[in-house]
Amino acid sequence: MNILIVHAHPEPQSFCAAMKDAAVEVFRQQGHTVTVSDLYAMRFNPVASAEDFASRANPDYCVYALEQRHAVDTGTLPDDIRTELEKLLACDLLVLTFPLFWASVPAILKGWFDRVLVSGKVYGGKRFYNRGGLAGKRALVGVTLGGREDMFGAHGIHGPLEGMLKPVLQGTLGYAGCSVLKPFAGWHIPYISAEQRAQVLQAWRARLAALAEEADFLPMPDLADFGARYESSNHKGATS
Amino acid sequence: MNILIVHAHPEPQSFCAAMKDAAVEVFRQQGHTVTVSDLYAMRFNPVASAEDFASRANPDYCVYALEQRHAVDTGTLPDDIRTELEKLLACDLLVLTFPLFWASVPAILKGWFDRVLVSGKVYGGKRFYNRGGLAGKRALVGVTLGGREDMFGAHGIHGPLEGMLKPVLQGTLGYAGCSVLKPFAGWHIPYISAEQRAQVLQAWRARLAALAEEADFLPMPDLADFGARYESSNHKGATS
Repeated sequence: MNILIVHAHPEPQSFCAAMKDAAVEVFRQQGHTVTVSDLYAMRFNPVASAEDFASRANPDYCVYALEQRHAVDTGTLPDDIRTELEKLLACDLLVLTFPLFWASVPAILKGWFDRVLVSGKVYGGKRFYNRGGLAGKRALVGVTLGGREDMFGAHGIHGPLEGMLKPVLQGTLGYAGCSVLKPFAGWHIPYISAEQRAQVLQAWRARLAALAEEADFLPMPDLADFGARYESSNHKGATS
Repeated sequence: MNILIVHAHPEPQSFCAAMKDAAVEVFRQQGHTVTVSDLYAMRFNPVASAEDFASRANPDYCVYALEQRHAVDTGTLPDDIRTELEKLLACDLLVLTFPLFWASVPAILKGWFDRVLVSGKVYGGKRFYNRGGLAGKRALVGVTLGGREDMFGAHGIHGPLEGMLKPVLQGTLGYAGCSVLKPFAGWHIPYISAEQRAQVLQAWRARLAALAEEADFLPMPDLADFGARYESSNHKGATS
């Protein structure tokens, strides 16, 4: 497999970075080709703006998604986006490793979604969910949290983790066409012992080692269940 | 009232910007004090990193939330964060206007959450949900979407909008202590006529004009319902 790991943590020595490093090691030992985008180390620009487009479809009014399409059509995506997009399109498995910041991904990773998941290639028109541009690829989220496991779930104060992560798991990865595996959560990481952290890391390694056989995907909408309305091409996402 | 509008759209002429401008106008006509943080115009830095802290609690290992606390305690928050935090703490009503990008806020606004909602002031320890640092403030989300209203809701392909926005509505605004009003959605904005847009803008103005009397808040967890476990102080959020 060709595997892309997108990592976003501000501290290079963090437990989350150790999860990223373990993933590289486990996958390479299995003979896979692994590419890492370490967004903090790359100083990735997360701000989707008109400045991303040297050649504009409409120089007077920026609809970001329409400019993305124009840039795809004219081959004028900026280098940082094109490089990331090529890595993404080449992968069979996308792994995201990040700490939960405000019930979601850190802004630098959100901006990777905003800028790299370009309309006209990854989504756009009828190209979403099972018809998304990333159909056939698998995706796995590995998240570290300050919170305890009992704060999540049906009876937890925050509700199920998959609910908090829905915009990422369904609204982004699933929407773009990926088959999305159940997220891996490293609970309460800043407050547990070194021994407990080693156990979490071991569980992560074991999960990854068996990932090729894993086929238990999160349920996603199937466009066919929603009928003729999705036959038209006016569902373009980030154009408002 | 003292009102803070945080606006995040890459196009200054967008419909979303018109919503922001209408909010300023309606609120000022009512005699309220209005402050606007236009994040794109400010070129706000959304990346939470060790570079935010001139004086470090731990120079060798950055736990972002613990450094936020240290910066609050020592009065060493950087100027851009301190300015935004002061605006936030001074407001009675927080209004967010943004386009839905990948089922969530644009990265520049996510980074405003990550950097401005500082531990030790806005949350941290027992300070979350109804005990959050922003308790007593109200919050309103005004979002523009490419999607149609029938794509959301219990039978829509994406599920309810409040579900997609849960990390923002509950995981951020509610968690920080705000009383969160139902979001206002401008549906299908890029594809509707100028007349339809004018109707959406009129509905937004009418909603805002009556906002002082509005008291229909989204349900949020009450720490008291979850018992003694939330009497301890080890629930610190973005520390993993």
